[in-house]
Amino acid sequence: MKDEELPERISDLESLTLRSGNPGAEKWLHRPVKCLDHGFVYLAEYMGSDSSIVQAARVSYGQGTKKINEDKGLIRYLMRHAHTTPFEMCELQFHCKMPIFVARQWIRHRTANVNEYSGRYSEMSNEFYLPDASVLRKQSQSNRQGRSDEELTPKQNEKVLKILNTLYKNQYSGYKKLLDIGLTRELARMGLSVANYTQWYWKIDLHNLMHFLRLRLDGHAQYEIRVFGEAMAKIVKDSFPLAYEAFEDYRLNAKSFSGPELELLKQLRGKLPVDKNTARNMAMARFQNKRETQEFLDKLDALGWLTFNWLE
Amino acid sequence: MKDEELPERISDLESLTLRSGNPGAEKWLHRPVKCLDHGFVYLAEYMGSDSSIVQAARVSYGQGTKKINEDKGLIRYLMRHAHTTPFEMCELQFHCKMPIFVARQWIRHRTANVNEYSGRYSEMSNEFYLPDASVLRKQSQSNRQGRSDEELTPKQNEKVLKILNTLYKNQYSGYKKLLDIGLTRELARMGLSVANYTQWYWKIDLHNLMHFLRLRLDGHAQYEIRVFGEAMAKIVKDSFPLAYEAFEDYRLNAKSFSGPELELLKQLRGKLPVDKNTARNMAMARFQNKRETQEFLDKLDALGWLTFNWLE
Amino acid sequence: MKDEELPERISDLESLTLRSGNPGAEKWLHRPVKCLDHGFVYLAEYMGSDSSIVQAARVSYGQGTKKINEDKGLIRYLMRHAHTTPFEMCELQFHCKMPIFVARQWIRHRTANVNEYSGRYSEMSNEFYLPDASVLRKQSQSNRQGRSDEELTPKQNEKVLKILNTLYKNQYSGYKKLLDIGLTRELARMGLSVANYTQWYWKIDLHNLMHFLRLRLDGHAQYEIRVFGEAMAKIVKDSFPLAYEAFEDYRLNAKSFSGPELELLKQLRGKLPVDKNTARNMAMARFQNKRETQEFLDKLDALGWLTFNWLE
Amino acid sequence: MKDEELPERISDLESLTLRSGNPGAEKWLHRPVKCLDHGFVYLAEYMGSDSSIVQAARVSYGQGTKKINEDKGLIRYLMRHAHTTPFEMCELQFHCKMPIFVARQWIRHRTANVNEYSGRYSEMSNEFYLPDASVLRKQSQSNRQGRSDEELTPKQNEKVLKILNTLYKNQYSGYKKLLDIGLTRELARMGLSVANYTQWYWKIDLHNLMHFLRLRLDGHAQYEIRVFGEAMAKIVKDSFPLAYEAFEDYRLNAKSFSGPELELLKQLRGKLPVDKNTARNMAMARFQNKRETQEFLDKLDALGWLTFNWLE
Repeated sequence: MKDEELPERISDLESLTLRSGNPGAEKWLHRPVKCLDHGFVYLAEYMGSDSSIVQAARVSYGQGTKKINEDKGLIRYLMRHAHTTPFEMCELQFHCKMPIFVARQWIRHRTANVNEYSGRYSEMSNEFYLPDASVLRKQSQSNRQGRSDEELTPKQNEKVLKILNTLYKNQYSGYKKLLDIGLTRELARMGLSVANYTQWYWKIDLHNLMHFLRLRLDGHAQYEIRVFGEAMAKIVKDSFPLAYEAFEDYRLNAKSFSGPELELLKQLRGKLPVDKNTARNMAMARFQNKRETQEFLDKLDALGWLTFNWLE
Repeated sequence: MKDEELPERISDLESLTLRSGNPGAEKWLHRPVKCLDHGFVYLAEYMGSDSSIVQAARVSYGQGTKKINEDKGLIRYLMRHAHTTPFEMCELQFHCKMPIFVARQWIRHRTANVNEYSGRYSEMSNEFYLPDASVLRKQSQSNRQGRSDEELTPKQNEKVLKILNTLYKNQYSGYKKLLDIGLTRELARMGLSVANYTQWYWKIDLHNLMHFLRLRLDGHAQYEIRVFGEAMAKIVKDSFPLAYEAFEDYRLNAKSFSGPELELLKQLRGKLPVDKNTARNMAMARFQNKRETQEFLDKLDALGWLTFNWLE
Repeated sequence: MKDEELPERISDLESLTLRSGNPGAEKWLHRPVKCLDHGFVYLAEYMGSDSSIVQAARVSYGQGTKKINEDKGLIRYLMRHAHTTPFEMCELQFHCKMPIFVARQWIRHRTANVNEYSGRYSEMSNEFYLPDASVLRKQSQSNRQGRSDEELTPKQNEKVLKILNTLYKNQYSGYKKLLDIGLTRELARMGLSVANYTQWYWKIDLHNLMHFLRLRLDGHAQYEIRVFGEAMAKIVKDSFPLAYEAFEDYRLNAKSFSGPELELLKQLRGKLPVDKNTARNMAMARFQNKRETQEFLDKLDALGWLTFNWLE
Repeated sequence: MKDEELPERISDLESLTLRSGNPGAEKWLHRPVKCLDHGFVYLAEYMGSDSSIVQAARVSYGQGTKKINEDKGLIRYLMRHAHTTPFEMCELQFHCKMPIFVARQWIRHRTANVNEYSGRYSEMSNEFYLPDASVLRKQSQSNRQGRSDEELTPKQNEKVLKILNTLYKNQYSGYKKLLDIGLTRELARMGLSVANYTQWYWKIDLHNLMHFLRLRLDGHAQYEIRVFGEAMAKIVKDSFPLAYEAFEDYRLNAKSFSGPELELLKQLRGKLPVDKNTARNMAMARFQNKRETQEFLDKLDALGWLTFNWLE
């Protein structure tokens, strides 16, 4: 991302500090990234940089070994071998605004600090997430937890958005009526849906943030939280370029082969690429499980190691 | 609670075990306690007893001191002096069903294990929390986060319940329509409100459960989560009678006096009980803060140490 | 502490940042505070200030209530009512050097991030904690976990220090011999004692640091870890003056009265100050426990509410 | 392990319970497994079984999908896709005795509950870890953190053990002398080495225990802690056979290929097995890093996919 494409900064007051600096993070401080229709994420505070990771790791090695590893090699080594504690020395604090159902998935990551907007203290806003028609999808049949690739008809899209919109409108006018009657806020908000926007300050260390990103950038995560994950990933990538590259190489883009899969790969010595049917039969015989078989075939396919019979 | 008042048990299969037993907890295993209109809590599994707390504490002391303390005295000593780790050796697992807004307050306690019903995997039920008219209240003005003691008129109550009920009905019929259109569950549920019921397995150690109870049995906690707290408190009290008694004495029923409050108490030597106006003036002069002054007066009053001028 | 008394700073490179500043913390960055004979603590990084606590708390209240509370009143309110999450928004990272037995007590605080010097990677230093003669004490009989106020004789002091010193010298020369033989470091270090110095980077949020300080500044904590607690307390006090003052008032200097103690106080209405024997008899009748009785008398005494019969 | 090979049980009192049973865990309750020369591990309490994992997972799916998955398939699916929360529903509590330096590595796993023997309360025992000559090794040069495969000479072994033994003897007699002088226990123990035995109750959920085992069963872990890991692994395997098998397949015996490694594998399509030199040159060109190159070659070799030129 070029600097001229950066969003507006909320605050531009510079001050002097003896803390270690992080130019990549400074670039993103107070610059909100828009997410979904009414949401955003911005970096509100940070602590540390790639150098802090290295510095913390090196306390283990004492003076004698300081020069042996370069920073990049050391960070990659730490990531590869799951020496996670040095990554915990960096912190990022975000201010985020998102629908309640996204907040509910997000909060399941326990190793973070949170201060959320409270519907008991304050009035909820009249902002609800109305998806863009382009992201509406049918229920997936194979993957019970998510949406399929199958789109609805334009007419169905229209109907869906109309139903949601009407619900939101009625909910909010009901909410206002309840407040007007004098009902306490903590009860009046009960008719508001999980599409209603909330916001929070969320603080987490870099190791746990990368764990969050690994799960929430995944194709199995709901699209709506992935949008927030991608916004934060962009900020992390600029702020901790070496750590993020290692994270991409060894986590995001890595693939794990199970013990039984490794046995099959051994048997396939000299036979790769392999015909899909042959591979499927071998895998089914070994795993006795369709889903696990399919996952193995998918990995071979991604490597270009499957061949397909035209008759299939 | 007498045994005959216990609710039905879900399962009655007994088996032999070498684990340490806990008759109080056995009594409650699989016995759901109804909470609010559609919710419940029951003890699904447990580990440990008052004796486990003692046993864990005693590993610190070695053999020589085993007989010095009796169990009760030791447990009370541990609680009084915040030696919390032995209480962490006991675990309780509950199966709970509650409105989403209650679940959202509950989940803020991070030191617990949770498996929640998923609106992505499964259809949400047509169950929404509709409060009993007797618990409806106006917004508190002094305490911005909660309800006051002031009731609505019967007519207003009726109107409130009608508004909520209509919202719930429309939300659920909207939800079903969206599912019928084929929209993926993870989006269709977006119009459902935070009064919709969810459920989970929730597991926590005894120390952290008591911390939860301390906060959620408090008068400042929202009534709807307090109901669940009270159900669990009843189970804990039967399961860990010594620990619970110590918890009541040193936490629930204890009062803390701040450093500045202790100074005022010193000054009040020989002058207690004290006239309310005198006490207020002393406190305001010291604290320069109305709320803190009021909290101090409330503590004196609870001790019967305030006198009131009839002219006031 | 006056600025001219501050220890030397390790690094003096200033840079510009958009992060929120903290002059009190900047003052202490990279300035080691000497602890015990070879140890130290210095602030290596920080994030946040009193203002960050306020800002995080205010997200709960929304816009409407922003001006109601001043910062100081709000921070004190948060501390008094155990709203701990806003304090978690601040982080402090320390570089510390301490004897292994101190590190062993320290590490029991789990909510922190640690990178420790490793005796597997690097050679252990020839630094052992040899206490100053002035802090040597006899075993306490009443408090089984600590030292009494009773001093040894000068001759005994001398003997103690000689025994320890000889052990340390032999341990280290044994260690060097084992390394010379070629034995792996991870085994050679096995003869080194828990007085040997180690070091680490330790990072913790402000709420958990204050919890640490509350336990480790207490008179029951071992003197040697208290020294480190006091060094950090000084830094926290300068860095978060409002939070620290509230912490002193409501935690460090506060006293909690249990439910049963409050009942006794009610009974003492109009009878305070009270004769010590009378108070003891009342308390023993209620508590049936000598230690709890003594703790109650100590609280009354601290308030100046006990009178003593000269015959006693 | 056959039942007749099981060590003695500490307690044999059976009682009735409505908790879910676990025959594999019952078998190991109170049966100490000897570790090193004076240490042990035994299962003191447990909660849950493979069925509890399944039950917790199924709350997410609601009623409709109950019969779709068999237990084994579901547990394997959960493990494969890092759905870790259901595994957290099981708890194991161990009583362990180990040298202090092992305890220091062990305690770094923060998500566990611990009550340790205290040298402040009680006298330390005269038990120190003296390694068997068969496990003494030279320092590894390639792996800076551990021992090599290279043995010492029998004479060197003898000398090593003599040095350690003498240190231990002198430390303990010094300790007793300091106690005799009257020095407080918390200072007298300072001359005792990290080979001295300590003990604790340690409680952890199954997910975090498996994470512990993954790191501590690894060849890079120090042998002395691996011994304890293996003892617990044996108990877990009997207690949670389905979960442990999945853990072995997808964690212990799995291998992860990084993004860049997967690219190399794509390029090797049709060229496997590959000559070691060719593979090394490809990898070095891609990684620019010797260690990463070697790790890639090791993975190919383990699959039997490397060929070696006889001239090499």
